[in-house]
Amino acid sequence: MTGTINVGLVGLGTVGGQVAERLLTWGPQLSRRAGVELCLQRVLVRDPKKRRAIEIAPELLTSEPADLLEDPAIDVLVEVAGGDEPMRSYLERAINAGKHVITANKMVMAKHGPELLDLAAARNVDVYFEAAVGGGIPLISTFRTDLQANRIERVSAVINGTTNYVLGRMAVAGLSLGEAVGEAQAAGYAEADPTDDIGGFDAAYKLAILGSIAYEIKVRPDEIYREGIEGIEPVDFRYARELGYAIKLIAHTQRHPGRVEARVHPAMVPLDHPLARVEGAENAVFVEGDLVGQVLLVGQGAGGRPTASAVVGDLIDLARSIRRGVQSRPSFSFDDRITVVPMGEVVTRAYYRIRVDDRTGVLAAIGHVFAEEGVSISSLIQKDAWSQDQTAELVVTTHPAPDASLQRARERMAALEPVRAVSAFLRVF
Amino acid sequence: MTGTINVGLVGLGTVGGQVAERLLTWGPQLSRRAGVELCLQRVLVRDPKKRRAIEIAPELLTSEPADLLEDPAIDVLVEVAGGDEPMRSYLERAINAGKHVITANKMVMAKHGPELLDLAAARNVDVYFEAAVGGGIPLISTFRTDLQANRIERVSAVINGTTNYVLGRMAVAGLSLGEAVGEAQAAGYAEADPTDDIGGFDAAYKLAILGSIAYEIKVRPDEIYREGIEGIEPVDFRYARELGYAIKLIAHTQRHPGRVEARVHPAMVPLDHPLARVEGAENAVFVEGDLVGQVLLVGQGAGGRPTASAVVGDLIDLARSIRRGVQSRPSFSFDDRITVVPMGEVVTRAYYRIRVDDRTGVLAAIGHVFAEEGVSISSLIQKDAWSQDQTAELVVTTHPAPDASLQRARERMAALEPVRAVSAFLRVF
Repeated sequence: MTGTINVGLVGLGTVGGQVAERLLTWGPQLSRRAGVELCLQRVLVRDPKKRRAIEIAPELLTSEPADLLEDPAIDVLVEVAGGDEPMRSYLERAINAGKHVITANKMVMAKHGPELLDLAAARNVDVYFEAAVGGGIPLISTFRTDLQANRIERVSAVINGTTNYVLGRMAVAGLSLGEAVGEAQAAGYAEADPTDDIGGFDAAYKLAILGSIAYEIKVRPDEIYREGIEGIEPVDFRYARELGYAIKLIAHTQRHPGRVEARVHPAMVPLDHPLARVEGAENAVFVEGDLVGQVLLVGQGAGGRPTASAVVGDLIDLARSIRRGVQSRPSFSFDDRITVVPMGEVVTRAYYRIRVDDRTGVLAAIGHVFAEEGVSISSLIQKDAWSQDQTAELVVTTHPAPDASLQRARERMAALEPVRAVSAFLRVF
Repeated sequence: MTGTINVGLVGLGTVGGQVAERLLTWGPQLSRRAGVELCLQRVLVRDPKKRRAIEIAPELLTSEPADLLEDPAIDVLVEVAGGDEPMRSYLERAINAGKHVITANKMVMAKHGPELLDLAAARNVDVYFEAAVGGGIPLISTFRTDLQANRIERVSAVINGTTNYVLGRMAVAGLSLGEAVGEAQAAGYAEADPTDDIGGFDAAYKLAILGSIAYEIKVRPDEIYREGIEGIEPVDFRYARELGYAIKLIAHTQRHPGRVEARVHPAMVPLDHPLARVEGAENAVFVEGDLVGQVLLVGQGAGGRPTASAVVGDLIDLARSIRRGVQSRPSFSFDDRITVVPMGEVVTRAYYRIRVDDRTGVLAAIGHVFAEEGVSISSLIQKDAWSQDQTAELVVTTHPAPDASLQRARERMAALEPVRAVSAFLRVF
């Protein structure tokens, strides 16, 4: 064992507390595995006087960023506080000061990852971010090492635990979206403001990172087609089940010649697909490579302990390479020529739930719209009918077609005289 | 890009053909990822004149081991031929000659892995063996890097595709073991002599490697309790399903204070457990760490392409570190004080299928045996009865008890006068 690596930790919340605790109580084991002593030198918190569950020497705590960023004794900055600024600039300052960086910050890595990685390469330091996607599920190293002999064809994931919990409660207990979100908040799975999760933003950040790693291209979060789970109603789960599907918020990216698909939206997933079985707050990532075939990785995608597992795993890996005086990771080289396919050109299947006047000619009118849009119908089923207002509910599923055609069909149907509303539109995975 | 790494390949069969093809046809991509050119220098085959599916320059082929092992131009020996000798000694010779080694050979790594790793550390070269367990599923790197912050509590796996295929066909189609093996042979999933798979030897080799990596101890294949699937009959699948279980060949290792369990045997797995859902020739590894919680890794555990994915992935990782002039991996340090728990002391639940004379007093006699052995019965159900010979079939499941007690109960029941046979005994997972 030679030397010590000094760690500056930013954030002492759910994740930071677990990281600090492992460093403080598991010293000998970690040092043996890292080949060097790992010393928690300083922790940046908002309020050093706040009472905390973890036992930590008060002199380690500071609310002054410079105490970490400008301390030359600190070798590695571990950031687990989250959010865009000031974290992005902390990471940038740390890299510029020649410090290695480990971050669990999906927002910063999704928005600014390529720039930070370029800067780190120029400064000859490493940026680790395994914890930014999928908690403790080994993803970055899987793509960066294990699957390197492959051309990655597609990555499909259930990567937001909150929406998966909410969709699960809607499916099983018949709750409305609002009720299920309330339950998730009470169970600690959803934030007070759940927009980031429910709206698909969190999943889009994670997909941006996954896509960048999988294809070595710069996928920006705002290039990713994004749709949240807001429009889904309890009845859709029943219809989905009858048709042999579950409803999941899917993050999906797929290779095409010179381009990639990258999209986040709720989708009907066949019940026998592994992603249909992902339950509760679990995450799952389904990868297809041209050599390896299909690989599925499942685990807890969030939470203090699984995320700390990834952070401290990164720290051990980093410490090993610092000890050997090398940059442990190959630098990232992004191919700028690959672009993201516009959603309108993405070919997918769709499910429509349509409220119509219960009279003759309706089906012909609807069939006419699909025919004119070149969309082939896979099934058309009349579900519930209501005698009081003479309406009925139709469910239509289609064969694969460009998303733009599916959307135009949706709009044109909504404008048909006997159609009261296109109440739901979901892609079929 | 600086320099070239010359590869000597041993074996040009299912796996070797795929490795060679990727190296020969994917040069630019592999070189870019490795940061160095990967050159297939020589291939050791039994018969250089044999016709092959792959297009390969005849001058690359040789049947003379020394052409690889004693050629100083070869930097890395890639061994995908399999079997114990002469492969073990080839690897040893290569390491002694200062060559790095990549192997897909589970038998050699299970039996001689610790010695080869020690030798490699002494010679300052690397031994990679991701392909030796679970085909393309990322396992070694997951344990050696991603999960390093964890104390691994247990690893449970369906790690032999042949038996999983066979058990699946027995469960679904009601085939006998012999019929299902015949089908697996016809489908290319089983060898002409299927003993290695059916008898659990292959799974035990893989578990020895997994256990060594997970706990950093030397687990020898002959220390692993091993039982094959030979005794299972079609009726057991029906009873298992009725009780809420699937039957799988499980490889399981679990940490205890100062010791580990390590065992391979068929087991009844609850239908809602992820390992119960592993289908066909698929492999799945379920890991539990104290920080990360449960992680599940699923993929094709065998076959040319998935295995080649792991081999070439190892090669890229190794090439990167050769280029940087470092040993990329931390050397293994095995803790010799940890021993394997004798099977008799392992606490598990059990399922018995018992053919008895259909008369009064039988249940009392059986209950008496279990009581005397201190085994608590969970359920006792009379299944089928046959009037022609006045016998009935009982199914007993137990609560957890030491395996020795469960075995003694089995023997003592078999000796009871009204018991015709204990027709099946399976652990319940």
